[in-house]
Amino acid sequence: MLVSGRHFFPDVAPRSLGHKALAVNLSDLAAMGAEPRAFTLALALPDAQAAWLSELAAGMLELADAHGCELIGGDTTRGPLTLSLTVFGDVPVHKALRRDAARPGDDIWISGTLGDARLALGDFRGEWLLPEPDFSQVRPRMDTPTPRIALGMALRGVAHAALDISDGLVGDLGHILERSQVGALLDVDALPRSTVLASQPEARQLECTLAGGDDYELCFTAPVGERDRIAAIGARLGLAVTRVGAITPEAGLRLVDREGNPSAYHGTSFDHFASP
Amino acid sequence: MLVSGRHFFPDVAPRSLGHKALAVNLSDLAAMGAEPRAFTLALALPDAQAAWLSELAAGMLELADAHGCELIGGDTTRGPLTLSLTVFGDVPVHKALRRDAARPGDDIWISGTLGDARLALGDFRGEWLLPEPDFSQVRPRMDTPTPRIALGMALRGVAHAALDISDGLVGDLGHILERSQVGALLDVDALPRSTVLASQPEARQLECTLAGGDDYELCFTAPVGERDRIAAIGARLGLAVTRVGAITPEAGLRLVDREGNPSAYHGTSFDHFASP
Repeated sequence: MLVSGRHFFPDVAPRSLGHKALAVNLSDLAAMGAEPRAFTLALALPDAQAAWLSELAAGMLELADAHGCELIGGDTTRGPLTLSLTVFGDVPVHKALRRDAARPGDDIWISGTLGDARLALGDFRGEWLLPEPDFSQVRPRMDTPTPRIALGMALRGVAHAALDISDGLVGDLGHILERSQVGALLDVDALPRSTVLASQPEARQLECTLAGGDDYELCFTAPVGERDRIAAIGARLGLAVTRVGAITPEAGLRLVDREGNPSAYHGTSFDHFASP
Repeated sequence: MLVSGRHFFPDVAPRSLGHKALAVNLSDLAAMGAEPRAFTLALALPDAQAAWLSELAAGMLELADAHGCELIGGDTTRGPLTLSLTVFGDVPVHKALRRDAARPGDDIWISGTLGDARLALGDFRGEWLLPEPDFSQVRPRMDTPTPRIALGMALRGVAHAALDISDGLVGDLGHILERSQVGALLDVDALPRSTVLASQPEARQLECTLAGGDDYELCFTAPVGERDRIAAIGARLGLAVTRVGAITPEAGLRLVDREGNPSAYHGTSFDHFASP
């Protein structure tokens, strides 16, 4: 459920909102290796403005069509602007990627790059100011994220555990560790980032890559023996896949830098109940 | 999607709210002749109060258990109090009851009684005042409606068209007429009503039975040859089923009284976008 003022700005462009509302749900399918089939949309809005609704629908249906995902039902009512989508997908029996399947020795992988959505958000919020060309480059990562459907499906039978990074890598990876009853060693310097983010101060890079969230990249674990296959999948999809650490038998998440020294980072994840 | 202040009172008992939020969705399954299987719940709430949530869950899960309907997913976030449920049910291929299947000559049937939910709401709103025993009797029809699941399933292959009455009989029956490209003759004096409602002024009875909504009874059409079977189904389920009119080839809904004279009633249905 996406609530105005919490999950998006009240004055967000409706086309972006339509795209993102579906994208974040498709991303949940991607994280399980599922193929999208259909979705429902429940919508509360303060008033029924035809132009606004038409733009919202356009952004949503364009992405839906790209994934062969049909709108099959839902409802609309008056109320504070809120969207609630339920998506349906298929995955063969026992082939779904899960959070509880990471095993000690697994590599930890990240798709694409992390942190750009958070970097754009910081500019929006006035936490920092980006040069206009930089902002234009990272903004689409916040406004119109790309669900990694093809990657998720390709990882069936290859990856052990997977999820999509929506609330921040540290918190989200924590879910895998907890559910799988394992720990992890993560090389914070190996985390993939855009050239725009790489030009930012070091502390901000850490903040954005480790706690940013909203990038909707996949984080997955896989046996060391699958490295070549995963690299080939990334090459075929034209999508970077980067090894950033390993699953350990001991509980807990240890962050280290490229020299193996403990990282100074202490951050947190997006809290859905924190004050806005 | 159910929005606080629009679909329920902000201070509603959470147990009732939990029941009703699921009941109105199960009612949609009932109207199609489907058997409930599972549901998801997306919930926005201003703050996470354990006692309130526990009551909400109790009301919801009690009804879910009664119908073998499992909660399989969803999410919670902070926001204006809003519930969005998606229910899943099974119905054999080509056996679903539809809105576009009414045929001229069909009887029009109503389950249970109509208007008590609206009668209770009017007391709540101060439109009229009911004696306490009367109010106590009709209030559960507003707070904890009963989805007519067993009836819907029994009507597979018997009824032609069906829907559940949520926004008011005139408006809801209008959907069947429009989709089926037929009209109807409705005897307003035949509409089933409780003894409490039957003791109210005539105009109020008409208002409550014809435009009340929120009763979640089924309105369905069926061939004249099915009268005995439908009566038997009602008897088996211990649920009144009442013939209230007939489908006509000419478009339009004509309301008549028991003598066949035009009814003076001019009303409307619940508008999800009207000002509260």
